Amino acid sequence: VPAAAPIAPIAITQGDSAGIGPEIIVRAFAEAPEALRGCFVVGALAVLRRAAAVVAQARGSRQAAVLTRLHGVAELAQVPHNTLPVLELPGLGAPQPWGRVSAQAGQDAARCIAWAASAALRGEIAALVTAPINKAALHAAGLPFPGHTEMLQDAAARHAGVPVQRMPVRMLLASRELRTVLLSIHVSLREAIRAVTQPNIVETLHITHKALQRALGRAPRIAVAGLNPHAGEGGLFGDEEEKIIAPAIAQARALLPGLDASGPFAPDTIFWRARQKDGHGGELGEFDVVLAMYHDQGLIPVKYGGLEHGVNVTLGLPLVRTSPDHGTAFDIAGRGVADARSLIAAVRMARSL
Amino acid sequence: VPAAAPIAPIAITQGDSAGIGPEIIVRAFAEAPEALRGCFVVGALAVLRRAAAVVAQARGSRQAAVLTRLHGVAELAQVPHNTLPVLELPGLGAPQPWGRVSAQAGQDAARCIAWAASAALRGEIAALVTAPINKAALHAAGLPFPGHTEMLQDAAARHAGVPVQRMPVRMLLASRELRTVLLSIHVSLREAIRAVTQPNIVETLHITHKALQRALGRAPRIAVAGLNPHAGEGGLFGDEEEKIIAPAIAQARALLPGLDASGPFAPDTIFWRARQKDGHGGELGEFDVVLAMYHDQGLIPVKYGGLEHGVNVTLGLPLVRTSPDHGTAFDIAGRGVADARSLIAAVRMARSL
Repeated sequence: VPAAAPIAPIAITQGDSAGIGPEIIVRAFAEAPEALRGCFVVGALAVLRRAAAVVAQARGSRQAAVLTRLHGVAELAQVPHNTLPVLELPGLGAPQPWGRVSAQAGQDAARCIAWAASAALRGEIAALVTAPINKAALHAAGLPFPGHTEMLQDAAARHAGVPVQRMPVRMLLASRELRTVLLSIHVSLREAIRAVTQPNIVETLHITHKALQRALGRAPRIAVAGLNPHAGEGGLFGDEEEKIIAPAIAQARALLPGLDASGPFAPDTIFWRARQKDGHGGELGEFDVVLAMYHDQGLIPVKYGGLEHGVNVTLGLPLVRTSPDHGTAFDIAGRGVADARSLIAAVRMARSL
Repeated sequence: VPAAAPIAPIAITQGDSAGIGPEIIVRAFAEAPEALRGCFVVGALAVLRRAAAVVAQARGSRQAAVLTRLHGVAELAQVPHNTLPVLELPGLGAPQPWGRVSAQAGQDAARCIAWAASAALRGEIAALVTAPINKAALHAAGLPFPGHTEMLQDAAARHAGVPVQRMPVRMLLASRELRTVLLSIHVSLREAIRAVTQPNIVETLHITHKALQRALGRAPRIAVAGLNPHAGEGGLFGDEEEKIIAPAIAQARALLPGLDASGPFAPDTIFWRARQKDGHGGELGEFDVVLAMYHDQGLIPVKYGGLEHGVNVTLGLPLVRTSPDHGTAFDIAGRGVADARSLIAAVRMARSL
């Protein structure tokens, strides 16, 4: 075996200790050691130790994963093979009861994220991959953020010395076959239609272009979906395509030379056209990413390809952050059976970015 | 070879003679003779002959498909093997120039549909499968119908002696893996939200139940999708789920004992849950059909699975009608290269209903 090449470190935050986060981290290290090379966990040794025990039990193994305590990122190169490196932050609480909302778990999850965000902004790590957290636990801990995105946005804005409004982000969802960026996320469909504005589309196209250009080494081919059936069929079923989306694409191109964005395309076929494989051994992949006009337009095709491969990427920040596309799954936490594939896919995606 | 079992006749209408309809009919008979057993074309011999010639040329074959002229449906049993039976309606026009809107082609297409609808309503044929027509051609022919559905609705209402409003229809789209029924079709997304009403959902559930119960021999398991992301997340992102969709499901159940309808479910995962195969050899198929709240919600996952297998079924009429899920494709008509798989899938679907 040749000596391992130096590899940029990636931090995986432990997530909510009452959820499946710690378990899927343990499983990911066991199931995909190659993909996890260069990764370490930011969390509490006791939390990871408990997770390792339930995973070993679920697998019928007497030997639980062995943890190695890191005192700093630089020690990562010296971690013994086949052990799970944990950088323990001082003062984290004990593991919390499985499947229950806990202020302590929320507080600890947030501290790990804050540490990793800061390390990424300082350039000490190449990326962060975040295990799932619980909104109610964050709220119980008195934290003013509903989720990861807002926490990272805040950290990045402070680091850059700008107001948080100057740090716009967008969510990219990816399966093995498809990437999609969402114009809006957690709002009603009625509100999502109101979010289809020219400035929003222009900003989203620019964020998407910049983030994927870094990853692909060339301008990404961006397809913009329409809002209405058949992209409005020439104005017969809605005029947002003609009045908002097409002018926004033109404006975005004029403002950013090199932007490769086209559309608006009929929503019902554009995701199929952008799909990397057609499911029968054929290749499509006309585009690198589809800009979806609302949450479900993009999420339905990504998830249709298999929930276990969904990855969530935050675009727009001066750091790389990915996460599995699922939650804390309190209903099955503590059984050691949660599926780690989405987390493994998130690690691979972080590496590719 | 045992003598062919008697098989219920299915009529395939020729569609617009300037489009790919006649060609894909010829290809379907050549590529899937078993599936097409018991089928015959309603159209003009000259139109099918021209299509057979271009298909033969595209395949590099010197021998074009042989047509057999039928003088009535009863003759179908005597049709020589490996020939393409055509029931020619009197007075149809000559084949029209490829790829151009033609009043004659519109008029002829409509006459074939009217004949087949009438034969189906009389019980002379088991089903009709319709090759694509062109809206502009129908309009040029002075016909008051924008498409097949309205024509069939009108014929069925006349046959039943009721006003057309008493013959409500819904569109079901099916791929090899997924069936979805649409609450509304060709309206803007804004208008589609307005079509999410309790009476519309109740009626759609009843139509879907009755049509698929006949096909499956049991109550279909119907999943109802939500309208908003995460089905509204308990009212946080929209209240249509709580105020309209859930009460409609309850009312539909109360009015029709035996109805197996549940939801509303998060739109981004319900199509994956209803998918018959997970794409990795696994089986899901929790539901037989998903009621989609708007056009693209249902069409995106159906088409994502592969355009070439999409089938369109009209539910609610006292006849079985299916069609391929594509149009006349004027841009490639006359080249003999159009893909017949969607038409073949439509024939199989008609047989199964």
